[in-house]
Amino acid sequence: MSNPRLATLVGTGLIGGSIGLALRRAGWAVVGTDRDRERADAAVAHGALDAVGEDPASALTIVATPVGSVAAEARRLLKAGHPVVTDVGSVKAPVVAAVDHPGFVGGHPMAGSEQEGIAAATADLFDGATWVLTPTALTDDQAYATVRAAIVDLGAEVVALDPARHDALVAEVSHVPHLTAATLMRLADDTAEEHRALLRLAAGGFRDMTRVAAGHPGIWPDICGENREAIVDVLDRLIDALGEVRTVVAGNDRDRLLALLDQARAARTSLPARFGRPSELGELRVVVPDRPGALAEVTTLATEIDVNIANLEIAHSSEGDRGVLILVVEAEALGRLHDALVERGFIVSHQQVLE
Amino acid sequence: MSNPRLATLVGTGLIGGSIGLALRRAGWAVVGTDRDRERADAAVAHGALDAVGEDPASALTIVATPVGSVAAEARRLLKAGHPVVTDVGSVKAPVVAAVDHPGFVGGHPMAGSEQEGIAAATADLFDGATWVLTPTALTDDQAYATVRAAIVDLGAEVVALDPARHDALVAEVSHVPHLTAATLMRLADDTAEEHRALLRLAAGGFRDMTRVAAGHPGIWPDICGENREAIVDVLDRLIDALGEVRTVVAGNDRDRLLALLDQARAARTSLPARFGRPSELGELRVVVPDRPGALAEVTTLATEIDVNIANLEIAHSSEGDRGVLILVVEAEALGRLHDALVERGFIVSHQQVLE
Repeated sequence: MSNPRLATLVGTGLIGGSIGLALRRAGWAVVGTDRDRERADAAVAHGALDAVGEDPASALTIVATPVGSVAAEARRLLKAGHPVVTDVGSVKAPVVAAVDHPGFVGGHPMAGSEQEGIAAATADLFDGATWVLTPTALTDDQAYATVRAAIVDLGAEVVALDPARHDALVAEVSHVPHLTAATLMRLADDTAEEHRALLRLAAGGFRDMTRVAAGHPGIWPDICGENREAIVDVLDRLIDALGEVRTVVAGNDRDRLLALLDQARAARTSLPARFGRPSELGELRVVVPDRPGALAEVTTLATEIDVNIANLEIAHSSEGDRGVLILVVEAEALGRLHDALVERGFIVSHQQVLE
Repeated sequence: MSNPRLATLVGTGLIGGSIGLALRRAGWAVVGTDRDRERADAAVAHGALDAVGEDPASALTIVATPVGSVAAEARRLLKAGHPVVTDVGSVKAPVVAAVDHPGFVGGHPMAGSEQEGIAAATADLFDGATWVLTPTALTDDQAYATVRAAIVDLGAEVVALDPARHDALVAEVSHVPHLTAATLMRLADDTAEEHRALLRLAAGGFRDMTRVAAGHPGIWPDICGENREAIVDVLDRLIDALGEVRTVVAGNDRDRLLALLDQARAARTSLPARFGRPSELGELRVVVPDRPGALAEVTTLATEIDVNIANLEIAHSSEGDRGVLILVVEAEALGRLHDALVERGFIVSHQQVLE
C-alpha cells in the first residue's frame, strides 16, 4: 500500500529541486536521488528533499532528469514497484511510447528559468504556470488523478493534451522560438565581432527576445533529437514565412506588411493569460465506460474547447464495469463542456452549479 | 540670437512627449506642434510643452514625427530659421542625405514602449538609454555639440555612428528581430486558430520574445521602406542561418548544435549593459583641423573602440583655422582613445586624469 503523501524525486536540478520545495510546502514528504550524489545531498540541505533515497511506497514518483534519460529511468522505477511515475521533459510522444505503461503519465511544466541547479530552485516556480499532462488510452485513471492532484498542490494549472499534439505545439511556442533567439543573437554577434560596443544599440526589445539564449545549451541536443520532426516542420514554416516577409519588404508592399503585423498584434494582445480563479464553480458527473482512453478523451477535449478543469475525481461503481468522472469547472463553462461531451457520446449524469 | 534653453518639438506622440517632459525636467522651455492640433493641446495639458508653437529662436528643434515625414519637416524648419534640427527616426541614412544641411544632426533614441501617444509619455523614458547621433562630414561642430548636450540633459548616453552603419546595425538588433517576433506570433496564431486555449502553452520565453509584436504596426511600413536594403540583407542572413539550424537538427548533429547555442549564450551573457558611471574621468584635447568630418571621425571612432564620451566641448582658436575638441572620458579609456586618435593622424595636445 502506498503512502498518499510521500513522493520520490529522481533528478534534483532546478526543476526537480523546485518540485521538491513546492511539494514539501504543500505537506508532502519527499525523498529523492540524483545521479550525482553531491547534488542530492545539496537538495536535502536546500530543503527540497527530506532524505536521499527512492521509496516504492511513494504515491507519486517524478523523474526530473534530462529528456534523453527519462524513459529508461521511468521503466526502471515502475519495475521496482513505484506505482505512479510522471516526468517533466520537454518532449512527450517518444517518451510516452517508450515507457508504454499504465502507471506512467507524461508531464511538462511550462515554466523554467535561465538559471540552473538546485541553488536557483524555488517553491513558487510553478505558481500559476500551465502544466501539461499527456494521458493516452493506456493511462490508468487513478494514476492520472494522482499526478493531477499533486500538480495542483504545486500551484500549477493542469492542461491535458495528446502527446504528439503537445510536441507539435511546444516546437512552435518553445523549441523553435528558442533556436530563433539564439540565431538572432549569433547574427548580431558575427557582425559586431570586433566592435562589441555596437551591441549597445540592442535595446529592450532585442534583450527581451534573446534572453532565453542565455540559458545553458546542454538540454537542447536531447530536445532537438527527440522532437526532431516537429522542430524541422516548424523551422520550415518559419523560413517560408520569413521569406514572405522578405518579399513584402523588398517590394515595399505597405498594405500586406500592415496586414501581417496586424495579425501578429491581435494574436499577441489576446494571448491567453493564466486561468483566472473562477468566481463560481460547477460540477459535472460523466459516466465513463470502462474502456481505454475515456479519461484521456474527456480531459484533452476540455483543453481543446478552453475549459479549465479545477478538480477531477474518479468514482467507480460497485459493479466495476463503469465509473463516474466528477469534473469541477467554472460555472460559466458547464454548458459548453456538457454539450461537447454529449456530442462525443458521453452520458452526463448530473450537472449543477456549486454554491 | 537663439535662446540656449528653448527647444521646439515637432510631433507630440510617445517619444516627442517624453522628450518634452524630460527637457522641461532639465530646465528647458519647450514649445511644440503636432499635425493634429488636439494632440499638441494634450501635450500642453500633460506637461510636455509650455505652449503650442514653433520658435526659430530655439537653440534646438526636434522632429519626432514618423520616419517618412522627417526629412520634409526638417528642411521646412531649417528654412524657417531654426538653427539646429535633430530627429528621432529609426532609419538615418536616407533622412540625413535628404536633409543635406550642416544644421541637421540625425538622431535615434534606442528606447521606446509598446504603448503609444502622449498619455504613455514619461520623463524617464531615456534614462540610461543609448541615443545614437549620426554626424557626417557636413555636420556643423557646434550643432553637434548642442544636440549632444541636450540629449545628455535627457538622461541618455550618446553614441556617434555613421548613418549607414547605424541603419545596418538597427536592421539587425531591432527591425528584423521585430519582424521575426511578429512572424513567430503569426505562425502560432495560424496553428491555434480554432483552439486558442492551446496558446496557454506559451510560457515566459515565448511571451518575452513576442512582446514587441503587441506594438502598433503603423510605423513599420515607413521603417521598412526607408531601410529596405539593410532589412532584406539581414533577413537573407537570418533565413540562411535558420536553414543551417534546420540541417543541424534534421541531421541530429549534437556537437554543431551545442557550438551554435554556446556562441549565442556567450554573446547574450556579454551583451553590454549601459555605460557605468565612471569612477574617475580623464580629459583629452584633440587638435581638430578645420576640415569637414573631423568631429564625425573622432566621435564615431570612440564608439567603435567602445569609449564612452561623457562630455564634449569645442574650443576654436583665435586664428580660426583650427579648433580644439575637449573630450571627457573614463580615465581607464584615456590611453586607448589617445592611441587610436594618434594612429588616425590627430594631434592630442593635452591629456590628464581629472581629480
